[in-house]
Amino acid sequence: MRTEAAGGSGHDLRHHGDAEVRDDGAALVDLAVNVRADTPPPWLREEIAGSLSSLAAYPDGRAARAAVAARHGLPVERVLLTAGAAEAFVLLARALKVRRPVVVHPQFTEPEAALRDAGHTVDRVLLRERDGFRLDPAAVPEEADLVVIGNPTNPTSVLHPAETVVRLARPGRTLVVDEAFMDAVPGEREALAGRTDVPGLVVLRSLTKTWGLAGLRIGYVLAAPEMIAELERAQPLWPVSTPALAAAEACVAPRALAEAGHAAHRIAGDRAHLVAGLAAFAARGVRVVEPAEGPFVLVRMPGAAGVRRRLRELGHAVRRGDTFPGLGQEWVRVAVRDRVTVNGFLRALSAALDPPG
Amino acid sequence: MRTEAAGGSGHDLRHHGDAEVRDDGAALVDLAVNVRADTPPPWLREEIAGSLSSLAAYPDGRAARAAVAARHGLPVERVLLTAGAAEAFVLLARALKVRRPVVVHPQFTEPEAALRDAGHTVDRVLLRERDGFRLDPAAVPEEADLVVIGNPTNPTSVLHPAETVVRLARPGRTLVVDEAFMDAVPGEREALAGRTDVPGLVVLRSLTKTWGLAGLRIGYVLAAPEMIAELERAQPLWPVSTPALAAAEACVAPRALAEAGHAAHRIAGDRAHLVAGLAAFAARGVRVVEPAEGPFVLVRMPGAAGVRRRLRELGHAVRRGDTFPGLGQEWVRVAVRDRVTVNGFLRALSAALDPPG
Repeated sequence: MRTEAAGGSGHDLRHHGDAEVRDDGAALVDLAVNVRADTPPPWLREEIAGSLSSLAAYPDGRAARAAVAARHGLPVERVLLTAGAAEAFVLLARALKVRRPVVVHPQFTEPEAALRDAGHTVDRVLLRERDGFRLDPAAVPEEADLVVIGNPTNPTSVLHPAETVVRLARPGRTLVVDEAFMDAVPGEREALAGRTDVPGLVVLRSLTKTWGLAGLRIGYVLAAPEMIAELERAQPLWPVSTPALAAAEACVAPRALAEAGHAAHRIAGDRAHLVAGLAAFAARGVRVVEPAEGPFVLVRMPGAAGVRRRLRELGHAVRRGDTFPGLGQEWVRVAVRDRVTVNGFLRALSAALDPPG
Repeated sequence: MRTEAAGGSGHDLRHHGDAEVRDDGAALVDLAVNVRADTPPPWLREEIAGSLSSLAAYPDGRAARAAVAARHGLPVERVLLTAGAAEAFVLLARALKVRRPVVVHPQFTEPEAALRDAGHTVDRVLLRERDGFRLDPAAVPEEADLVVIGNPTNPTSVLHPAETVVRLARPGRTLVVDEAFMDAVPGEREALAGRTDVPGLVVLRSLTKTWGLAGLRIGYVLAAPEMIAELERAQPLWPVSTPALAAAEACVAPRALAEAGHAAHRIAGDRAHLVAGLAAFAARGVRVVEPAEGPFVLVRMPGAAGVRRRLRELGHAVRRGDTFPGLGQEWVRVAVRDRVTVNGFLRALSAALDPPG
């Protein structure tokens, strides 16, 4: 683990997986984007469609906010609904008076990009492959007044113990934990959402991934009431659309939580299948970062750029890893999909690793 | 017309018409909110519902942006889609380096609220009733480097001549013209959208009002490419949802433009009916600001607060005027509705002006 100042270095922080399936993507099997690959389930689509008859009214977020608060056992003053986690990162970057923000990498690049766009100088703590990309709280500079970490972390799929993350908290420091993928972890063990005993804690949640709602722009922030009020003041009026509010309310209902719980176990099984399949290529230099706990795995392989190109020719998209600070050309991220899709991918990978000629 | 510095004066800039119909509003005939009162038309609802099957993908705004650009005869580099005009005001307030912003009042209060929230000191130019709330460009301080004006103006319903507005443009000054209600003006005469010859011009457009899409959060900004790029950098990733993009594309298609054109003529007729009905109360001190050119009228009446309360008891909501800088207790804003609704309102108003006892 080491600390570095984020320069205008080679990493394209604004590269996201959706760009890898965007144009000719219709023809590709998508293992690049970390979103449930099928559309939202029919019952959820019906809830959203039902909201279309009340579009003439301005959005009224009160019911959805109360539902999210109840789901985490919190008062509504600790909840802010946002237009996806992406909006939350911009609000944090713009509303907070911070002088020494630190982002723990490799992770989702948007928090750092939002901080930089807001004029901040961002320091990076880089977790290392040889440490299994695990967090050592002592590596974060004591003077950091904002620390951003993902749990489980995109793209490493490492799930940090909740109590290790809590050790990053300090009086006078804002600790942002991006739990966008936590609902894909069975039992949401290691979640900090709902905790009120950690000073400066800000938890971000997404409804995008598990529910296939990336197009709807909905997520939320959990934090102390004063922090929520500060972020809310930086939001535009009516920041979340009526269909997104309807989806939020539906996605935190007991039925949806039960379905998400089942999905988390299914993902764990599918991931084990993917990881076992990748292990078969160990002799060709393929290494998976383990234990993987998210709905994706980080994979190291020699000549990854060429493999990725050949995979595309064979109809499969995986996400490049080299745009994540701390990773290089040899990394790719692979989304966990159902076994049939994974088997097809593994066959393609076998061919891609072993090019003709 | 006079200039004043905006203090923490008595005006609640964050009061909006939707608050007046929100809670017990289901029982009220809504003449408070400036949005088409019925739901979006069936063909538009179908376009939006059709987008729900692709929610798993992140929003891709390129087609909608191109459609909006084509509608105004502009290159895409001059168009930015936003989550409603409210987001555009926040982007302008946060992204622009301005030192002397001026807002021309009375007008929609959100631009000033967004500027203040971003830390700016805002000066006001107050148009006066005795001038018919008409703009005199000479009243705007020469040193203003940002000027915000609405056309037609909410809540006065005054339509300023395009060439009068253009006289506010200066090298080194950003001129923001909020044309949220311009598509309710037959032929969109006096529109500046599509003009590329006015230095520093920024035009805001909404799709909310005419199409009953307030719940969907969609609008756009037209400006020089450098300005658009600057605002875009201040936006979160994926700022506009997939359903909102589908709506935007549908609402700028030729069929929709023709329907909006017809609606503008219908509104003009309904407004004439409303204004004539209000003229019948002239002896009781009721005065309409004329000529009214928007889908609402501004009305002065003695004891407006009491009249508004009695109207509510009689089942009709109108918007209070006293939260708009430059207006006082004696003002209300009334949305233009169909003749049957207007007739019911006029009957209620007659009773409300003439309370028992």
